[in-house]
Amino acid sequence: MALAHLVYPGAVHSRLHHSLGAYHLMCQAVAELRLKGIDISPDEETAVKAAILLHDIGHGPYSHALEYTLIPGVQHETLSLLIMQQLNDLLDGELTLAIDIFTNQYHKPFLHQLISGQLDMDRMDYLTRDSFFTGVSEGVIGYARILKMLHVHEGQLMVEEKGIYSVEKFLVARRQMYWQVYLHKTVLASEKMLVKIMERVHELYPLNGTSLSINQPLDYFFQEFSGEMTKTALENFCRLDDADILFAIKKWASFSDPILSLLCTSLLNRKLYKTSLQTQPFNATKIALLEAEILSRYRVDKKDLHYYIFCGETANTTYTPEHEKILIIFKNGMIKNIAEIDNPLIHQTLSMPVKKFYICHL
Amino acid sequence: MALAHLVYPGAVHSRLHHSLGAYHLMCQAVAELRLKGIDISPDEETAVKAAILLHDIGHGPYSHALEYTLIPGVQHETLSLLIMQQLNDLLDGELTLAIDIFTNQYHKPFLHQLISGQLDMDRMDYLTRDSFFTGVSEGVIGYARILKMLHVHEGQLMVEEKGIYSVEKFLVARRQMYWQVYLHKTVLASEKMLVKIMERVHELYPLNGTSLSINQPLDYFFQEFSGEMTKTALENFCRLDDADILFAIKKWASFSDPILSLLCTSLLNRKLYKTSLQTQPFNATKIALLEAEILSRYRVDKKDLHYYIFCGETANTTYTPEHEKILIIFKNGMIKNIAEIDNPLIHQTLSMPVKKFYICHL
Amino acid sequence: MALAHLVYPGAVHSRLHHSLGAYHLMCQAVAELRLKGIDISPDEETAVKAAILLHDIGHGPYSHALEYTLIPGVQHETLSLLIMQQLNDLLDGELTLAIDIFTNQYHKPFLHQLISGQLDMDRMDYLTRDSFFTGVSEGVIGYARILKMLHVHEGQLMVEEKGIYSVEKFLVARRQMYWQVYLHKTVLASEKMLVKIMERVHELYPLNGTSLSINQPLDYFFQEFSGEMTKTALENFCRLDDADILFAIKKWASFSDPILSLLCTSLLNRKLYKTSLQTQPFNATKIALLEAEILSRYRVDKKDLHYYIFCGETANTTYTPEHEKILIIFKNGMIKNIAEIDNPLIHQTLSMPVKKFYICHL
Amino acid sequence: MALAHLVYPGAVHSRLHHSLGAYHLMCQAVAELRLKGIDISPDEETAVKAAILLHDIGHGPYSHALEYTLIPGVQHETLSLLIMQQLNDLLDGELTLAIDIFTNQYHKPFLHQLISGQLDMDRMDYLTRDSFFTGVSEGVIGYARILKMLHVHEGQLMVEEKGIYSVEKFLVARRQMYWQVYLHKTVLASEKMLVKIMERVHELYPLNGTSLSINQPLDYFFQEFSGEMTKTALENFCRLDDADILFAIKKWASFSDPILSLLCTSLLNRKLYKTSLQTQPFNATKIALLEAEILSRYRVDKKDLHYYIFCGETANTTYTPEHEKILIIFKNGMIKNIAEIDNPLIHQTLSMPVKKFYICHL
Repeated sequence: MALAHLVYPGAVHSRLHHSLGAYHLMCQAVAELRLKGIDISPDEETAVKAAILLHDIGHGPYSHALEYTLIPGVQHETLSLLIMQQLNDLLDGELTLAIDIFTNQYHKPFLHQLISGQLDMDRMDYLTRDSFFTGVSEGVIGYARILKMLHVHEGQLMVEEKGIYSVEKFLVARRQMYWQVYLHKTVLASEKMLVKIMERVHELYPLNGTSLSINQPLDYFFQEFSGEMTKTALENFCRLDDADILFAIKKWASFSDPILSLLCTSLLNRKLYKTSLQTQPFNATKIALLEAEILSRYRVDKKDLHYYIFCGETANTTYTPEHEKILIIFKNGMIKNIAEIDNPLIHQTLSMPVKKFYICHL
Repeated sequence: MALAHLVYPGAVHSRLHHSLGAYHLMCQAVAELRLKGIDISPDEETAVKAAILLHDIGHGPYSHALEYTLIPGVQHETLSLLIMQQLNDLLDGELTLAIDIFTNQYHKPFLHQLISGQLDMDRMDYLTRDSFFTGVSEGVIGYARILKMLHVHEGQLMVEEKGIYSVEKFLVARRQMYWQVYLHKTVLASEKMLVKIMERVHELYPLNGTSLSINQPLDYFFQEFSGEMTKTALENFCRLDDADILFAIKKWASFSDPILSLLCTSLLNRKLYKTSLQTQPFNATKIALLEAEILSRYRVDKKDLHYYIFCGETANTTYTPEHEKILIIFKNGMIKNIAEIDNPLIHQTLSMPVKKFYICHL
Repeated sequence: MALAHLVYPGAVHSRLHHSLGAYHLMCQAVAELRLKGIDISPDEETAVKAAILLHDIGHGPYSHALEYTLIPGVQHETLSLLIMQQLNDLLDGELTLAIDIFTNQYHKPFLHQLISGQLDMDRMDYLTRDSFFTGVSEGVIGYARILKMLHVHEGQLMVEEKGIYSVEKFLVARRQMYWQVYLHKTVLASEKMLVKIMERVHELYPLNGTSLSINQPLDYFFQEFSGEMTKTALENFCRLDDADILFAIKKWASFSDPILSLLCTSLLNRKLYKTSLQTQPFNATKIALLEAEILSRYRVDKKDLHYYIFCGETANTTYTPEHEKILIIFKNGMIKNIAEIDNPLIHQTLSMPVKKFYICHL
Repeated sequence: MALAHLVYPGAVHSRLHHSLGAYHLMCQAVAELRLKGIDISPDEETAVKAAILLHDIGHGPYSHALEYTLIPGVQHETLSLLIMQQLNDLLDGELTLAIDIFTNQYHKPFLHQLISGQLDMDRMDYLTRDSFFTGVSEGVIGYARILKMLHVHEGQLMVEEKGIYSVEKFLVARRQMYWQVYLHKTVLASEKMLVKIMERVHELYPLNGTSLSINQPLDYFFQEFSGEMTKTALENFCRLDDADILFAIKKWASFSDPILSLLCTSLLNRKLYKTSLQTQPFNATKIALLEAEILSRYRVDKKDLHYYIFCGETANTTYTPEHEKILIIFKNGMIKNIAEIDNPLIHQTLSMPVKKFYICHL
């Protein structure tokens, strides 16, 4: 959970926990579906379990917080796929079916949907896990019941009618975890400051490479990386983890550049930028006033102002209403997208604003 | 939870558990409010704790299921009050302040609101407890957080702005517990059959008193009770509990009257009436058809048809939107009713239908 | 847990919960053993699951507390077997294999040991469940780990070497639950008083049948029952549950006999006899003094003294060291009885006194 | 828990969690003792809470695993004290009372015993927490009950008689956590390898300082540190955490020295040395054979053999029976050391071997 532990100290669980947890749920889902007569061969079982175990392997240090920053423009799923392909070479093709499922090229789409879909094992695990480790009980979901309600019809994953209340709760819980945890303003501030640190190092690196240097893989991404995910790039990426970044921040905190040093020191001492979140964009005049104040109070170069004050918007983007498609299968065999169902709470949850605007400043 | 254990076998927790739990939460609420500088004297503390401990003491056997049936027209709060008054006599007035708070006659309304209000310790405990013992995770609420967010302003209980998401969750959870648990169609069917049993015994008693007789207090309510809550009535009421009713049903199951025997046997063997629940009233033609079928298939006297098929409506009645008033206090001191707040999910939850129509039949 | 809720109010879980829980553990044990290559056929699986579901079906009202009292000399396992045999008749022999396993006549003894042995699913469930519902954390056992450590060798159930600490913990936990919960002196007092009530009713019945009469099945056991478990006896037994006994006690509390009325009133109002428990028998002089005091203070007939003061011994009898046989299988294939293993804590636990002496008096 | 997560992946909880947890328990203990009439002034309350919050602040990177290695001969309590003294200077003496309690110089010894004694809040928290995060249910203790049983008599912390079973369980649980978790052979192997890594770096540093250098504080301990805890030493110590060591190991894994590189690579890839644990010292001949095999199989310099194979003993040293003093206060006012009490299980637990011998080798 990147830097969420600055707000929720319990949130120190790891990517490994999540992968094992999602794998555990996948075991249950496969057993449940088989009980309902859905055909899943032993090979498909192995493949879908391998795929869920590996689905997040492309997450780098501080996962979502540094996604697109360390390797601009590449999302973690792409990296997961590249790593899975390399592993597949080492394993003489044993992962081929897992990769087909992961990339949704297999002829049974429900296997892919168990890994990546509106009710996949990934979300089922992370909502449960994150709510447990943060102590935010609003995120508790009835995963055991949803698993029991899963069904497959014409190759598509769906939920039995009886599970509607659990799905309703799942949608509400996910929404609540976003605003209370993942996009909590203090978590947001700290993670944006982490991004600003990386940005500043990128800017300073051409002139100060030696003194900013941390280790070979980080040097590679600050100096050599072309933007293309070559084998070398991937190898360097795999050698990095949170410890490297944290070590670097501790070192950079005493670097001569006042901007880098300020950002690192503030983050380490949890003296985070002031942050506001709201559903409307921030008023331009208000931003201008804040900028003027920073310029006048600190000796800040105008071109560096964006390190001291910045705006943006944040969203639970992957879940826009138009893509939110959960199929419900009724006792009489009828199938409906959840958005068509006469349940005002689900409608409301689905159609609520999924983005907010933020401003962070010194 | 009356007969909810027929659907959720874990739901065997007792009224005693709930009273102790609500008392426990009251201890925390008092401590929390005092930390915020709210003045609560030792006498007030004792009184508000005594009141929450006793708030449900007027519940008779099978609580809500037989409320208004055993003692027509009298709700359990009235009985709680009568019992508290009797105890107060025995205790030389030690409960006077508790009673004033319970009946909202004390000059600090927030003390009453902690016992009976939109966010009282009663609901906080029963939602948590019922969701725990049924295993319905949709009912989990963040009671610890809501308690931390409570505040008092001008004598009124309110919630700090930061607690809005927890209140949102609380409202959604309560709604979900109603439809998934309290008004689950099988729970509803069994509880309505219990009511029909009592109704039938009432009808048969004048002619069959001796053979239907169970014990003195039940005889009293079937034979002598005038409708007025005299001291004798209250004493007889206090001598009854679930065991008497269950014992009676086991005995009546072999009584000669076919209606009583059918109802008792069906309930004991969990062969419950078929039940449907929907948001619209049931179609008169459909009801007529069902009635005709029952009349033709079983030898049923038309005047007794209502024991074999009955309709009704059910609601989370105490919580109609117009009475739903939770006050939110903002950082700047502003106070708003939660219904005025710009949160579509809360609006939606508050304005969703709170009643459903049911039909039960053999 | 009979009357344990008088000390641990949470302990209201039912025999049904326990049966479902033991069944759930059996499902896991079967799956685990199969993963290790142990051959269990689908029929054996069904049978062993049916047997664990039914293993306690012979428990009557207030289970252990009234075992041997309501039906003298017959233990609940015998009753379970009789009921299973009747069910088997109804089910055209579908339970034959389950009965063979239950009575240890099947050629794979480990299946019986999963139901009734030192590490059976029965104990695994009740220790976990009772410790959960009483809140006595000392009884928590690592059932999940023990299940993973189970193995079968030459038809015998055993535990892998790695599981020794979990077994050690299991033995300590069981011992602690006995002294802290099952044989807690207040629980003991209340359950012995319940036995005395039944004893007194037995004594009074010949002369007061009509006024003591509760219902047909209880009449049967007080009047007609010959001691032989005929079909009629079994049918009457099956018609009784806790509600009948509790109803009876409430009624007998106002019966004219002062002994019966005293015992019933005391139990209902939780004014229990004073009780002491110790590892040595009570000193005869001390007992005599207490008896003398009771005789002088209350108008007690000497022959009825045993209703006011009584001694006895209590033990976790089924678990005497000599029968305590848990086999451990070592990595090198060697097998040892746990009592031979060099673990002083296990030795000590196994050899600690398993009985205590008690005295209860008015 | 240093490297215990290599065996128990869940064990990633932090020193901060433990400190907050112990503080939380202290709040409860103080409240409980006050309820029993023990005089604790507001200043004493603040001091004892500050002391428990800070009691472990002297733990460096990988805590127990590297204690005595990074700073030879200095235990973490001494470092905690030094840091508390520096904080006290910054806080104008506000911590003076906390320090007096921490060092047991205050005239109410029970306050010290709540921080450091046989039943202190430290152990109460870490047993509960470690057992929770590892999932080793054998370590579950009844901390809530022990807290309720605490008492103070003539300034000494003691436990009421009724709490004996809970103390028994506490002693058994602690013992089980040692052998199952803290001294698990794989955890032991990994932590000893970590120590060997630091040892090797110490040896190589004089000649390879530049290429081994990680950062300023680590350089200080490898090069300049005299063994005396000067202010500079303490400052450098406080700047180190797990990230620095992990970063270093990743870097040293590709260092030219084959020993250092082997140790680091093995640890990072979890290819740990083979390890055995037993209650008797290892046979010299067996050791010699293993050594000979390593010498012949790998090109190992004899003087470096200790990096490839090493023996030692490990113990829950702080808890030798002679120091194990828990006072029990009986209802009649009598006080006994727990070791004098007639409870064979406690005796056995107290007198069981507290040390084991280990051998680790390539």
